[in-house]
Order: sequence, then C-alpha cells, then structure tokens
Amino acid sequence: MSDFSSYDKFKKEAEDGGYYINDDTEFVQSLLDSINVNIDRYGYASCPCRLASGEREKDLDIICPCDYRDPDLVDKGACFCALYVTEDVLKGKQQLTSIPDRRVREKAKKDAENESSSENKSSTEILGKLKVPIWRCKVCGYLCGREKPPLNCPICKASQDRFEQIL
Amino acid sequence: MSDFSSYDKFKKEAEDGGYYINDDTEFVQSLLDSINVNIDRYGYASCPCRLASGEREKDLDIICPCDYRDPDLVDKGACFCALYVTEDVLKGKQQLTSIPDRRVREKAKKDAENESSSENKSSTEILGKLKVPIWRCKVCGYLCGREKPPLNCPICKASQDRFEQIL
Amino acid sequence: MSDFSSYDKFKKEAEDGGYYINDDTEFVQSLLDSINVNIDRYGYASCPCRLASGEREKDLDIICPCDYRDPDLVDKGACFCALYVTEDVLKGKQQLTSIPDRRVREKAKKDAENESSSENKSSTEILGKLKVPIWRCKVCGYLCGREKPPLNCPICKASQDRFEQIL
Repeated sequence: MSDFSSYDKFKKEAEDGGYYINDDTEFVQSLLDSINVNIDRYGYASCPCRLASGEREKDLDIICPCDYRDPDLVDKGACFCALYVTEDVLKGKQQLTSIPDRRVREKAKKDAENESSSENKSSTEILGKLKVPIWRCKVCGYLCGREKPPLNCPICKASQDRFEQIL
Repeated sequence: MSDFSSYDKFKKEAEDGGYYINDDTEFVQSLLDSINVNIDRYGYASCPCRLASGEREKDLDIICPCDYRDPDLVDKGACFCALYVTEDVLKGKQQLTSIPDRRVREKAKKDAENESSSENKSSTEILGKLKVPIWRCKVCGYLCGREKPPLNCPICKASQDRFEQIL
Repeated sequence: MSDFSSYDKFKKEAEDGGYYINDDTEFVQSLLDSINVNIDRYGYASCPCRLASGEREKDLDIICPCDYRDPDLVDKGACFCALYVTEDVLKGKQQLTSIPDRRVREKAKKDAENESSSENKSSTEILGKLKVPIWRCKVCGYLCGREKPPLNCPICKASQDRFEQIL
C-alpha cells in the first residue's frame, strides 16, 4: 500500500516512482485525510473522490493509486482527484480541465467486450491474450504493459517518447 | 549487491523496493554480521542460514536476497532466515511458523523435470519457453515473471490482488 | 527527466536505480554543468560529450542517460562520457579505457538492417518482433528487454549473473 500517513512521505514515494503530486499542499492534505478515513472505515485506501462499495473485491480498481491514474495522467495531465498531476501541469505548461470518470467508460467498454467476445472465440493466438501493448524503455530496458507508455520511466526517469512498443 | 553495511541502509533499501525486514533489530544485525563474514570469506553475500559451497557459481541462488525469498514471503510470510517478513507479519496479523528450505524441494523438482524433459521435447511453442507466469500490475503496468505476483508492486506499491496474469 | 540540478541529487537518483557515477566529483559537476547548458539551449538534456542537432526528435537517443549507457557499462565499464561507471571501476577492480561512440556503430548497423529487411519480410513470427532478448531476474522476477542483463537489478539489486533469458 502507498504511504498516506503524511504529506512528505506520500510526496517522496510518488517522486521516487517518477510521479508528481499536486503542489496545493492543503488540497493534497485534505485528500490524504479522506483516504485515511476510508482506510479506517473500509480497511483499504479507497479513492477519496469516488463512492466506495465497502467491498474490497469490488473496489480494487479505485484503491489509490487507482487503475485509471496513469491513463488519465497521460491524457488529461492529472488523475480524477487531481492528487497526482504531470510535470507539465506542475510547471504551468499544461492547464487542468475537468476529468470525466474513466471508470464509468471502462466499465461500459468491458461490458460491451464481454458480450461480443462470447460470440467470436476463434482467436486463440498468443498475442490475443495480451489486452494491452507491451512497452520497452530504450534507455534501461524496463518493460511495462499499458495503453500508452508512462510519462517517465520509473527506473531511469527517461521521458515517454523514449519508449517503443515491442508487443 | 544489496547494501548490508548497516541496519538502516539495509532497511531503507528493502522498503524502497516494497519489502519489509524483521523488526527484531538485534536479530537482523546478527544476520547482517553473518552475511558480512560470508562476503569476506567467499566474496559474495551467501545466505547466513545455509551452508555455502564457496563457489559463487553453485551458490548463486542463495546469495541474499535468495531466489527463494519471494515465494517464501508469499507462502510463509517470511524468507528462510526470517530476515525479510511480510507487512502482515510485522503488524501481528500473521504468525510465523517454521519455514522448510525451499531450495531442497526446488532442486528435487528440477532434477525430476530434467529427466522427463529429455523424453518429450515436442512442445516447441513459445509459451513453453516461459517457465514462470508473467504478471501485470493493473495500476502502473509493471511486469514481472514469478510463480505468484509480489505482495506489493515494487514500482507503485499496489497490493498483490491488483496484479493479473497476462502470459 | 533525471535530476541534474545538483551533484547529490543526481548521485542519489542513480544509486536508487542501481547505477554508480564517477567518483571524480569535479569532473561530474562539469558534465552536469554542460548538461544544464544543453537544457537551457535546446530544451532537453543532450549528452555533454556529443554534438546535438538541436531537434529533440533526432537527439532522443543521446538525451542523458543515453540509449548507449547501459550496453557501454556492461561492455566497457563506463558510459561514453564516463559520467556513469560500474561498481568494479569505482572499486578499482576494472580499468577504464577509451570508449568508442556506440551511436556511430548502431546507426551503421540499423542502416544495414533497414536495407536487408526490405528484402525478406517473410518472418512474421511473434518473436521476430522482439529486437532484443527479454531477461528475468531470478530473485524478484523483474523483466527487461536489453542486449544483456543490467549489472544490477534495479528492483532488488541482484547481480547480472542472476538474470536468465526467457524470450
């Protein structure tokens, strides 16, 4: 689990992994407080900006950092809560806009896929198993499976444009 | 090589990678002392709780952290030496029991496999090459090849149940 | 982007990833100064020992750390600038020699490949897509795609000889 116990620890952990957090410290602290309330209430760090079901199994995708943080950072410059932001947002090069909840869209997409996949199951090819592309950092060789490469390589901090898709 | 020079450095390095060490500091220090004796004697950080052969080549799997640490953490809550433990053990949620030496079992298994594999070599399929499953962290996309996913993602600290097997 | 703002930050970041920097602090500081000049001039951290084109797109491979650092560390014990060195070099176990610019060779190799690949495009096999081998750390399961495994696993710091090729 990420360390939500203090602003400083949370920030350090994020930065060690190549992430950035919002520089509005009061705002961040209030989100951390809400996360800690959720930890006490549910036993897991449910997203402070979404409604938890109370069942860990059902809320796995919205445990902070949520499954949607990284694609939202790439596409929108911030996660749904604006707890995590990009370097460009921090430096004022990118403006934050409202971020629609990717969870809603993803769920609808999955439901649609489940319906259609029950129809054509012929594709037994290996690569068909890979639901996401595999990216390789050309600097250090780090591999990850995501829709798009991370903004910074978590190992060597190389920027997104130094990744190549290998599968 | 891991940094065994002091308790604090060793602990920090472990925690940065999402691992936890035993909170009995005297016990840990005595293990570190033994590892440092092994480094002086053999030139490598042989496990303090196993008998080293003195040949690095033969002892690669028991250089600390050993090849068995991670599966033992997942299955038993601690490595063979109880140098590394899980968060649950640290918090008293899980009780430590004696840990049989996985090295002995793995060696027996490999010997058996080598015998049988010489018989049926027809499977030239790509996935047959993969001796271990490939896991993907659904939060950050981190990929790793292990029997079971790590207890915490070393990149984003997401918990084990947020990994999916992709190959 | 790596943090080139100070010697200490740069050193820490490198070491957190399992890398070592030259222990000649004045030399390192002069390289960092040059990199910072390049950041101001071009907008990216172009290698201080190579001629930049001024177009990020064309210089992606020489943004520090460059695409050639890791293979040069493995083969030569240092990167082209000798900014990054191996543990063996630091400890005086390995002597530094002059390092030919791998970029020149790689470019020639790619040009040759591009010529020949336009001739035989029959190999549509999946593994043919993988231009580099995939390595697995037998300690923690870390996967990376590189010519040779890293000198130290960036996750658990295991040494190079504890990696196995899986694809």
